[in-house]
Amino acid sequence: MKLYDGGRAPSPRRVRIFLAEKGIEVPLVPIDMAAMGHKSQAVTDRNPLQRLPVLELDDGTVLVESNAILAHVAEETPWLPPPGLPRTRLMEWLFFEQYSHEPYIAVARNIRAYQGTAAQNAERLARCDENGGRALDAMEHRLGAHDWLTDAGPTVADLALFAYTHVADEGGFDLARWPGVSAWVKRLAALPGIVTLPRR
Amino acid sequence: MKLYDGGRAPSPRRVRIFLAEKGIEVPLVPIDMAAMGHKSQAVTDRNPLQRLPVLELDDGTVLVESNAILAHVAEETPWLPPPGLPRTRLMEWLFFEQYSHEPYIAVARNIRAYQGTAAQNAERLARCDENGGRALDAMEHRLGAHDWLTDAGPTVADLALFAYTHVADEGGFDLARWPGVSAWVKRLAALPGIVTLPRR
Repeated sequence: MKLYDGGRAPSPRRVRIFLAEKGIEVPLVPIDMAAMGHKSQAVTDRNPLQRLPVLELDDGTVLVESNAILAHVAEETPWLPPPGLPRTRLMEWLFFEQYSHEPYIAVARNIRAYQGTAAQNAERLARCDENGGRALDAMEHRLGAHDWLTDAGPTVADLALFAYTHVADEGGFDLARWPGVSAWVKRLAALPGIVTLPRR
Repeated sequence: MKLYDGGRAPSPRRVRIFLAEKGIEVPLVPIDMAAMGHKSQAVTDRNPLQRLPVLELDDGTVLVESNAILAHVAEETPWLPPPGLPRTRLMEWLFFEQYSHEPYIAVARNIRAYQGTAAQNAERLARCDENGGRALDAMEHRLGAHDWLTDAGPTVADLALFAYTHVADEGGFDLARWPGVSAWVKRLAALPGIVTLPRR
């Protein structure tokens, strides 16, 4: 097994967090995204969308989409409840993460903390702030009253949402506004093997 | 079971397509999105994100996120392959749909065909055109050589992607540029029970 990994990007990182938690050592193929390494032939051959992470299994099978990879490697572990309502609850959060959370929370962080192009992106950032806030509100709605996102205990849904949430302040979201979310971040970070992101 | 449905919006429609295909009659609770019905108390109580569709089961369980709902109702049918690599392949496409397809293909259609605000949204539309084209390229990469998105025959991944793809021309994407995708749209539309969207 090897993981094509984009370094500081949280999407590959969420797979690494899970593998670390499980004590699985996976060789990394580091891809320098700043040097457009994700557009290289090696990545394009494995994922025509030129996105990371890409997980290559020992038999050559290539998996893409970080949340699909997470679910795949977590199959038959306590991190992925069995099919039926418990798994559906987890899937609701994974789709929420891709559609309602990442496009605002991660994009705001990228613009503000990495590109440093807030002035040129005022309109886009306004959309990120509004919709990112609503995403955190939705998480607070659950986490204000529960320890984890689903009733199945900590799952890959928590890991998937943790990836960008624990560095959301770099995108301008002060987590103190969402105390249930803040407590959940601390609860997750205290689990064995959880790897946090380096900060800017 | 009842489905809170937003009328012309394809995301609820993808659930209706599946239920129709299965011959399941489900009462609809029509929500007038033009009149902001999705912000109503009835919807907010069921989905704090105020998004449709919402599926309410007979025991009162409420499901959200159209792709999670699709997978839930398709469990133990041929439309959802069993856990393991076959299901992971399907999940890759469902996440692709939410992250790389819908935000561009559906948004372009909404701006061009429904809001009629192309002039005010030039920058956003340019991003839609570029990234929506890349999403269709990724589908063509698969569908140019295969009948369905995964090797498991038609699945809910095909239904999920069909919802916005078959009306992509209303967003400015001429499907003639993607012949494998066009053939797949016709193949899907010919299946029993498939419901296409009304056009503008």
